[in-house]
Amino acid sequence: MIDIDAANAEALKRLMDARPMLTGVARAVDVIPGMTQDLLLHAGPPITWARASGPLRGAVIGALIFEGKAQTEAEAVALVEKGSIRLEPCHEHAAVGPMAGVISPSMLVYVVENVTHGNKAFSNLNEGYGKVLRYGAFSDDVLKRLRWMNRELGPALSAALIRGGPLDLRALMAEALHMGDEGHNRNKAGSLLFLKALAPHIAASTADPMLEVEILKFIGDNALSVLNPVMAACKAMTDAAHGVAGSTLVTTMARNGTDFGIRVSGLPGQWFMAPAQVPVGLFFSGFSQADANPDIGDSAITETAGIGGFAMATAPAIVTFVGGTPKDALNATLEMYEITLGESKAFTMPALDFRGTPTGVDIRKVVELGIAPRINTGIAHKNAGVGQVGAGLVRPPLEIFEQALVAFAEKYEI
Amino acid sequence: MIDIDAANAEALKRLMDARPMLTGVARAVDVIPGMTQDLLLHAGPPITWARASGPLRGAVIGALIFEGKAQTEAEAVALVEKGSIRLEPCHEHAAVGPMAGVISPSMLVYVVENVTHGNKAFSNLNEGYGKVLRYGAFSDDVLKRLRWMNRELGPALSAALIRGGPLDLRALMAEALHMGDEGHNRNKAGSLLFLKALAPHIAASTADPMLEVEILKFIGDNALSVLNPVMAACKAMTDAAHGVAGSTLVTTMARNGTDFGIRVSGLPGQWFMAPAQVPVGLFFSGFSQADANPDIGDSAITETAGIGGFAMATAPAIVTFVGGTPKDALNATLEMYEITLGESKAFTMPALDFRGTPTGVDIRKVVELGIAPRINTGIAHKNAGVGQVGAGLVRPPLEIFEQALVAFAEKYEI
Repeated sequence: MIDIDAANAEALKRLMDARPMLTGVARAVDVIPGMTQDLLLHAGPPITWARASGPLRGAVIGALIFEGKAQTEAEAVALVEKGSIRLEPCHEHAAVGPMAGVISPSMLVYVVENVTHGNKAFSNLNEGYGKVLRYGAFSDDVLKRLRWMNRELGPALSAALIRGGPLDLRALMAEALHMGDEGHNRNKAGSLLFLKALAPHIAASTADPMLEVEILKFIGDNALSVLNPVMAACKAMTDAAHGVAGSTLVTTMARNGTDFGIRVSGLPGQWFMAPAQVPVGLFFSGFSQADANPDIGDSAITETAGIGGFAMATAPAIVTFVGGTPKDALNATLEMYEITLGESKAFTMPALDFRGTPTGVDIRKVVELGIAPRINTGIAHKNAGVGQVGAGLVRPPLEIFEQALVAFAEKYEI
Repeated sequence: MIDIDAANAEALKRLMDARPMLTGVARAVDVIPGMTQDLLLHAGPPITWARASGPLRGAVIGALIFEGKAQTEAEAVALVEKGSIRLEPCHEHAAVGPMAGVISPSMLVYVVENVTHGNKAFSNLNEGYGKVLRYGAFSDDVLKRLRWMNRELGPALSAALIRGGPLDLRALMAEALHMGDEGHNRNKAGSLLFLKALAPHIAASTADPMLEVEILKFIGDNALSVLNPVMAACKAMTDAAHGVAGSTLVTTMARNGTDFGIRVSGLPGQWFMAPAQVPVGLFFSGFSQADANPDIGDSAITETAGIGGFAMATAPAIVTFVGGTPKDALNATLEMYEITLGESKAFTMPALDFRGTPTGVDIRKVVELGIAPRINTGIAHKNAGVGQVGAGLVRPPLEIFEQALVAFAEKYEI
């Protein structure tokens, strides 16, 4: 007879004790467990090509062209359709990627190490705004940028981290939350802290001054620069909490643009999925809900670790982006205390008298109260390559948690 | 018969329309109006050497050694006592300086131009934390740093601004207020925005890579880097509002470590002064109120322009520094709406539904309600050279505003 509360306390402790450090940048096929030349990783739960949405398809096509495995869209599609290329969730390979989240073998990735428990996590590098691979774009400009990032940006970051030593991402995230970020949709402060930490080391280790200028500008101008390392940090924290027998703590929330999937600590090896909802929020001018793709991306790993939408109360400026009022932002956080197991030690919110963020979604509470976690998210155009069309809030379907609870009861004979 | 309300509307409009841009770095004697080789500028209202506090004396001594006008403390003191060196307020020369705020002829200073009205303002460069000139220290280490700043840092910033073009400080301040800064005592976000804007241009225009590393590290590690440019920006805004006949708007609040002084728009040429209070707040370990110097510095120009303590509601993290709770921070801002003429257009606070900060202290309201402006401030040790001992809140003495109101009534025959 398992002690669920004890198991949850253990899982939550592991999540909170985790200390993710950014240690370097390396090639995916060299560091990501199980990465092979015929594999592409993607955001969210498992998906077949046939069911994949526009942005994910576009990103897969772009990645294959980037890898040199295809010259054209048609060639890329043929490779996937005949099974020469496999598609698997980033999450099953200790990795995460925002939006389409496609990681290919040659891509340079961030390496994050949880120095408390020893596990690692990985994420790709952020391309910035506009027409980018993660929104399914694969034009010549997109590929040119990806190649520059892989050839120049990644190696420069790698050298900077070697010179400067590992970067404490948990401390960075905690500081960013005191500067109006929530870590998922508003990363402005975190990205500036990231730039500040790396800039002197980039300067010291980049021989070409003009390249150095380009890199400092690229990182500085991209308010999302830190999103990918932060996502990998959250992945490292939640992976540390995964696999605790008898725990009902949610360790993964992820979307592939078609389905929303979760994983639970006490149910390793299982995904629970249902069709993803379309986020509701503010749209850029010229776009509306009708243009929106269903929810997509691994960035809900931030909410899974207790930040993002769960920390909205500390980031009132975000409402200009996702809609609502600062009071709504406060209430979004307060609601999440109802369905979580504890309050973060590391991540506190000054506006709430430095209360820790609601951390550790409990599938029992979600089902019992009928309150699903709330996620802040960017909204993608449903067609590949158009890009971001807005930002807003979305919830996973409640039925996922019900499925998980049933599976839990069966496994533990409750 | 003057129309006070119309005059105040005009003065407030000038304050709010002002657009301060950081255009460069130049030598004080070359750009500050009235700067001469025998002059030292200091923070606060006029003060005699005999009445000057420890930190101000130490800063004057250090500045004279820096200038090469004295080799020792005794020589420096002799110069001042016999009148070979004159002391005048920064404020009377379109300048501002934090804490002792001493600016000497050879020092490089920030040049800020209010592009709306054409007036300029100036401030020295920030030395960082610890034992520094602005707290009255003048050891060899202090002078070494000052010389490095003047020989390397200043010129690098100058070249960066030439290459990158003017930096919009009003926009930077507005953004920082959305990132948990209040602009006086908490400048973390603003300093990171400052670094981000300048880093690529510093990289492009600094030939020596090791010097470049030093500079990026110096600016990045100093959370107060942006304080001095922001103070000069506020000075440019308030100077634009100064000298409007019939206006009761406060255009200067400043302290020299002995007296607190204010100036009023409709009473140009006059200071109103009284002994400065000792701030109340949190002290660093080993120090207490008994060690504190009376209020010192021109940084209250931030409150004068509507940020700093007036914007505390948007910077709840500051309470870890100045004491109190986030609720107190909110109330500090709300109280200031009672004594101000309007609400800022540029500077808004997300937590208050993007309400503009309380802007434009009205001496009539201060006297009528008995509510003095509230200022966030660092606290200096009363002995020269010990440094900062804490941070807290302080108010100017009410009698200053009463004096000013009497003078106003006399001048305008009310």
